[in-house]
Amino acid sequence: MKPFAVATAQLLKKLGPRVVRTDEDSLREASFDSAKIPFRPQAVIKVRKEADVGILLALANRHGVPVTTRGRGTTLTGAATPVRGGWVLDTLALNKLRVDAEAGLLHAGAGAKIADIQRAAAAAGWFYPPDPSSKEYCTIGGNIACNAGGMHGGKYGVTRDFVVALRGFLPTGEFVEWGTATKKFSAGFNLRDLWIGSEGMLGVITGAVLKLIPAPADRWTLLTSFRDETVALRAALALFRARVQPAICEFLDRESVLCAERATGRDIFAGQAGRPVILLEFTGSVSDVAEQREAALAWAQEQATAFRAAKDREEAEQLWAVRRKCSGAMFELGDAKLNEDIVVPMKNYVRFAQFLTRLKRESGLHIPTFGHLADGNLHVNIMYHKAIPAECRVAEKTVQKLMETVVALEGSISGEHGIGLAKTPFLRIQHSPAQVKAMKAVKDALDPRGVLNPGKMFEVFEVWKHPRLEVHLPWDHK
Amino acid sequence: MKPFAVATAQLLKKLGPRVVRTDEDSLREASFDSAKIPFRPQAVIKVRKEADVGILLALANRHGVPVTTRGRGTTLTGAATPVRGGWVLDTLALNKLRVDAEAGLLHAGAGAKIADIQRAAAAAGWFYPPDPSSKEYCTIGGNIACNAGGMHGGKYGVTRDFVVALRGFLPTGEFVEWGTATKKFSAGFNLRDLWIGSEGMLGVITGAVLKLIPAPADRWTLLTSFRDETVALRAALALFRARVQPAICEFLDRESVLCAERATGRDIFAGQAGRPVILLEFTGSVSDVAEQREAALAWAQEQATAFRAAKDREEAEQLWAVRRKCSGAMFELGDAKLNEDIVVPMKNYVRFAQFLTRLKRESGLHIPTFGHLADGNLHVNIMYHKAIPAECRVAEKTVQKLMETVVALEGSISGEHGIGLAKTPFLRIQHSPAQVKAMKAVKDALDPRGVLNPGKMFEVFEVWKHPRLEVHLPWDHK
Repeated sequence: MKPFAVATAQLLKKLGPRVVRTDEDSLREASFDSAKIPFRPQAVIKVRKEADVGILLALANRHGVPVTTRGRGTTLTGAATPVRGGWVLDTLALNKLRVDAEAGLLHAGAGAKIADIQRAAAAAGWFYPPDPSSKEYCTIGGNIACNAGGMHGGKYGVTRDFVVALRGFLPTGEFVEWGTATKKFSAGFNLRDLWIGSEGMLGVITGAVLKLIPAPADRWTLLTSFRDETVALRAALALFRARVQPAICEFLDRESVLCAERATGRDIFAGQAGRPVILLEFTGSVSDVAEQREAALAWAQEQATAFRAAKDREEAEQLWAVRRKCSGAMFELGDAKLNEDIVVPMKNYVRFAQFLTRLKRESGLHIPTFGHLADGNLHVNIMYHKAIPAECRVAEKTVQKLMETVVALEGSISGEHGIGLAKTPFLRIQHSPAQVKAMKAVKDALDPRGVLNPGKMFEVFEVWKHPRLEVHLPWDHK
Repeated sequence: MKPFAVATAQLLKKLGPRVVRTDEDSLREASFDSAKIPFRPQAVIKVRKEADVGILLALANRHGVPVTTRGRGTTLTGAATPVRGGWVLDTLALNKLRVDAEAGLLHAGAGAKIADIQRAAAAAGWFYPPDPSSKEYCTIGGNIACNAGGMHGGKYGVTRDFVVALRGFLPTGEFVEWGTATKKFSAGFNLRDLWIGSEGMLGVITGAVLKLIPAPADRWTLLTSFRDETVALRAALALFRARVQPAICEFLDRESVLCAERATGRDIFAGQAGRPVILLEFTGSVSDVAEQREAALAWAQEQATAFRAAKDREEAEQLWAVRRKCSGAMFELGDAKLNEDIVVPMKNYVRFAQFLTRLKRESGLHIPTFGHLADGNLHVNIMYHKAIPAECRVAEKTVQKLMETVVALEGSISGEHGIGLAKTPFLRIQHSPAQVKAMKAVKDALDPRGVLNPGKMFEVFEVWKHPRLEVHLPWDHK
């Protein structure tokens, strides 16, 4: 008999075959996320309403069935992969949205898409800033589960900064609400925020109340180019020192620029092929943006080798194409990628850039790097060829060295993706034994039977030892 | 032999008599906080360095000694009261401050004062918005412990929104760091935020890294008056609906205004004595504030019975006097106060105002109410005379009714003070049995011997049954 067959049969009886799917297609679809390392579940439960979640969890606890909660599955870390089999809880149908236009709050079901949330907010004159690159696909439930960020982090904050209340279920199946639909709440332990970033291991989020901010009336885009990485990073620091705060400050290193130039078939700045760039966006009232424009242009004049300002939104979109094209083109540098989302404190930017140059030289690998300078969150992409064993081993050592250096530089091994499976080998570089013990104690306290997302975060899983599916997902770059 | 005498003797040997105080004055001083309900501790430990905290907690665990962490003791809830005796851990000496001017971060010891933090930030061109009214006295450790707010909550957020990293000790005495000095961190469970608002029950905070924002270049103040409470609240909603976002939006009801007018000896607006007011402050760039000024004046013209704009900072300070004077003068309405910091969602403002009018009429008590309209955090002050038993009983029933109504209106029993002792009778109005069980499970997991701040949050303590000390504290109003 298949594992958990009795439990699955009981669940099927309670929720029906439209909710509890055991057909081959459903199982295959739910067997992997964007990490593309498949593990077969026993059933996929496409919940239609909140109460389904409680029924499912109560049964999972009785029978010890592993439950992996899933939104759209865009996570790169494997956090939504059912490594222990069992049930995949699909929350996509819980996708209702409602804007409270007066209070500047948005009520969303866990399955609501980020882009839909942003559009609903904008339609009411409000703004929801967190913007992971998969925003047209990924859900707010998943964004909360990994505390997703995006390009607006430095000025506006990350997902955590916009969650005022959560509702959902404890691992044991009891319904709970953390916080109220208000901007202040200081009653009892803050389990709302404990759930944020807990990657589906401490509870199942079914809905959230999000804080909105007034939509900026104006924005303006500036693309700048620099002699080399060190000069670019120093220039960014000079901008911040002058208290100019861009809404977006995207950095692309030499290799990322070359990727983008290859993808678009032309140099970003004529005669300056492969020079690192910083792409800036300033937001605010019309007059506010005008003030920032003046300061930014003076800065660019002084620091950049070349720059180009967008005259209108259409031109701005063209500048943005540079940033959007760089990721996809990286696969010309290798057919496998270790995609890391580390964070480095500003004071160590230059030391990190020097380390990265050394790392590229010593490993012989391409490591195109880009990311968000206003919050230090850099995407370091270690490219290699999976058919060449020596390269695989070098890539493995390189990522280890990267993580050790990031922590030595007082940074973080993850800024917005979370741990999932992919970063489990590095958790103990970041966290002391006492810290890990405390986290595990919290996990055991809330999930005594260990049903929610087992095998994640604390158990070491080496993604590079697992073959990845050859599938193209809709949100894959290019 | 006194309780915990052996443990105290051992601690004395380890840390010395300058740190471990058992003299009468020290014990008396540490026996109460702003709740003014004294319980005698066995010793007060004035730690000089972080490591002292680890030594103290290890010993407390071995001997089961209750430990109550304390900053300046400005809390109104009794959260820093050593109800079970034992040791009071005084963090005031851990008060170092350092601004990272480039990154916009501030490193603070737990004992650093909020006003000092704000001044250090301002000196570097940055701004730290949370501003509890006791900011010249209270510490960042205490502010984090209760997730303190203040008047800037609606636009800028509360303490939680400015904490990027914490350091300190688990209840068991192990040193931990939650988060890094960066604006993004998504590695492992979010115990940083679990500590925020945990009122010294889940760990001892010794230091924090705070996020700063660029200091607004300009601000402008407007005082407005309305026919009655309902009209005033409706007007505020109209302002928010128009997406005008004041940095501060303070409401004073009729009774609060009468208190302020009595204290200052003159009517706020001539011929309009006792009319509720809203005091607004707008911040931003010079041009931004100019835009807001225009919108706000048009709004006031339409909605208010009278208004007065500040021509300069000096005039603004005069307008602010109204707000500052109202609290102290309340003691002419009764010699005892139940000071509640409830939160009501915007959509229920008018219903809450109607409820409050009924509550005043039915109880026969004075209940001056003021607070922060941009986040719904209202300070409801139930005044009574402690020598009149019938009034005490009515006050007790009135606060119960208030809390039930607040939760029925989808609000919170506390917005910025926390639970401590004072709000323990109401915790279960706010939180379901499953929610309370989850909180207690987390507590037991992290503090298995229950040494940190025992007797708080979960055990019902009725403050109105305990006589209060007749002391005037430096931060008491008037």
